[in-house]
Amino acid sequence: MIAGHYEKMLQEKSVIRELSEFAAARGREIGYENVFDYSLGNPSVPVPDAVTETMIRMLRETDPMALHGYSPSLGIPSVRQRVAASLRQRFGLPYEEEDIFMTSGAAGALAHALRAVTVPGDEVLTFAPCFSEYFPYVNGTGAVLKLVPADTETFQIHFEALEEMLTEKVSAVLINTPNNPSGVVYSAETLINLAAVLNKKADAYGHDIYLISDEPYREIVFSGVEAPFVSSYYDNTLLCYSFSKSLSFPGERIGYVAVNPACADAAKIIQMCGQISRETGHNCPASIIQLAVAENLGITADLSVYETNKNIIYDELKTLGFPCTEPGGTFYIFPKALEEDARAFCEKARKYDLIMVPGDGFGCPGYFRMAYCIDTEKVRRSLPALRRFVREVYGVK
Amino acid sequence: MIAGHYEKMLQEKSVIRELSEFAAARGREIGYENVFDYSLGNPSVPVPDAVTETMIRMLRETDPMALHGYSPSLGIPSVRQRVAASLRQRFGLPYEEEDIFMTSGAAGALAHALRAVTVPGDEVLTFAPCFSEYFPYVNGTGAVLKLVPADTETFQIHFEALEEMLTEKVSAVLINTPNNPSGVVYSAETLINLAAVLNKKADAYGHDIYLISDEPYREIVFSGVEAPFVSSYYDNTLLCYSFSKSLSFPGERIGYVAVNPACADAAKIIQMCGQISRETGHNCPASIIQLAVAENLGITADLSVYETNKNIIYDELKTLGFPCTEPGGTFYIFPKALEEDARAFCEKARKYDLIMVPGDGFGCPGYFRMAYCIDTEKVRRSLPALRRFVREVYGVK
Repeated sequence: MIAGHYEKMLQEKSVIRELSEFAAARGREIGYENVFDYSLGNPSVPVPDAVTETMIRMLRETDPMALHGYSPSLGIPSVRQRVAASLRQRFGLPYEEEDIFMTSGAAGALAHALRAVTVPGDEVLTFAPCFSEYFPYVNGTGAVLKLVPADTETFQIHFEALEEMLTEKVSAVLINTPNNPSGVVYSAETLINLAAVLNKKADAYGHDIYLISDEPYREIVFSGVEAPFVSSYYDNTLLCYSFSKSLSFPGERIGYVAVNPACADAAKIIQMCGQISRETGHNCPASIIQLAVAENLGITADLSVYETNKNIIYDELKTLGFPCTEPGGTFYIFPKALEEDARAFCEKARKYDLIMVPGDGFGCPGYFRMAYCIDTEKVRRSLPALRRFVREVYGVK
Repeated sequence: MIAGHYEKMLQEKSVIRELSEFAAARGREIGYENVFDYSLGNPSVPVPDAVTETMIRMLRETDPMALHGYSPSLGIPSVRQRVAASLRQRFGLPYEEEDIFMTSGAAGALAHALRAVTVPGDEVLTFAPCFSEYFPYVNGTGAVLKLVPADTETFQIHFEALEEMLTEKVSAVLINTPNNPSGVVYSAETLINLAAVLNKKADAYGHDIYLISDEPYREIVFSGVEAPFVSSYYDNTLLCYSFSKSLSFPGERIGYVAVNPACADAAKIIQMCGQISRETGHNCPASIIQLAVAENLGITADLSVYETNKNIIYDELKTLGFPCTEPGGTFYIFPKALEEDARAFCEKARKYDLIMVPGDGFGCPGYFRMAYCIDTEKVRRSLPALRRFVREVYGVK
């Protein structure tokens, strides 16, 4: 009598897990340094020293009862205040403590935001290509996730498809900019048009439509690219943030939901998040981690390596003739495969020790994702393998 | 269109929150040291120095990429191995890594365990008096929690009531020993009888019945009391543990599910817990916290103050004529109120700056809970107030 639903999830193959097992096995054969593993979105730079020093100082100097004590279910008040102040200062919206809910990373933020603004049976829309974990996040609420097809020219929004799919049953639209897997940053124009569609449909249907904005890559934006602050464009926005990438702190599970103060129910939605936690057993990120990030809101890890890697890979892919939209941020790139079946393409690439993820799992077949959060030196060493692969298999050049 | 279910939860009054707000307000008037606040189950002793030193050492010496990197969804393998080894050594059951799932405290453990072995519509039984958060933990799964009435003589199990309520719809029974709020430790006899009932009913109904054993107070057991290891008595046991009380580490949110290796589906249940996390956005406790507790499994905070406090309070309550079962562990005691309405009793006690929680919220009206995780000196200072209260209001002595 174990729960069949979760038992069934076990049987679904995880492509990324399989790839990473292959990479590990191959690494044991030839040395992991010789496997060009572009499969995993793991930060490849260390946490800033300032965060480490903050934690050591707190462990040495803070009363352990205060440091390790229970956090209120919405997060530690001083932490919520600092997060609100930082957002106010950077983005000009009047966030206050009451608009902030501390979470275990973006996963926790999304799980709470989705539960707060959907009921079972609702539809949630997101855009291909998308992070594959959006499916369990939404399914877990009882709502249904539907995928708006990609605009593969620009990887901005396919507005015709959106308008058609945004029926009365849709209670929330989920976006991710800078985007995993495309690396694309939504332009101000895209966000203006999106807000217009959402406002028009909300008026027509006579109910709110919430915008859930998943922003773990907000701080990884490349030179010359403008990353507009999503919440400034639409009142009913729930920002879901994670420090995993900006601070290279993914295992410490820390992020937040920030509801746009212009949202009529902002404070109530945050309070509801605390009730959602009671049912999911989430109960706050670790106290010391909350306190440590709150003291280091102004800084990031040294993220410059990702832009260096992007430039090298993007140039090489263009030279080799891959159709490819240039990433504006993140540590991903999403080129078109050189044959229709991206699974077959990635399978063949493995023989050259190139580990890449087919776009099928992101809802965008025919493309593939490279996660270039690896050492630049390894990126450079991977280029001859990439050239050999496309020459020998696809006759390029 | 925010989710009405969670909005409604906001309107339910939390008695403990109200009491703690009263205590804080009164504290601002007369000094918090003069408010005898027995309302909150917050550890009152510091984390062991060894845990602090472990964390500082890891921050200084461990590669930050390894220290703060993503934990696999079931927990860090070395941590799961150490937890399994520690349980093997202490309790003699052959736990292995594959039987352990790391969680954000007991809340996370219970939320996962309940989802793994119930489906919506199932019934889960627990025993009055119980921790009030069991209701949202179970409701969140779609199952229904039913409360077996208390055996108020001993606060062991009321077996007649259990047998009657354990119908075919019950998929899990949830126990908590040492118990919040009674402080009682289930005897070996109780556990033997419980296992017999569960086995008998499982045979009769032709389906498994899981025992979910919530054990955050396992290390707080008083001298002369034997606390049998629940999992040794029944194969299909899911142990839910938290380090919050044993290490005085509640804000760091760390615990685990350990499935009895004798349970036919042990490894599968653990794997399913990883799938459950994908839907609830839980995704592991913080990496540094997992690593820190794994290096300190053999130790606890200095928990002796709780027994000292228990002795003082129990003696005083008996002297004053309160019917009261002596706690065998925890930092709670659950005496009978001196009038039928424990809410009225606790309301009157407030005038003497004694903050205690009526048993109604624990499913056991007529009783009240004192959480004596406060300084012994304050416990002593509270006795004159307690005496004055019962003399002036109830004419005792």
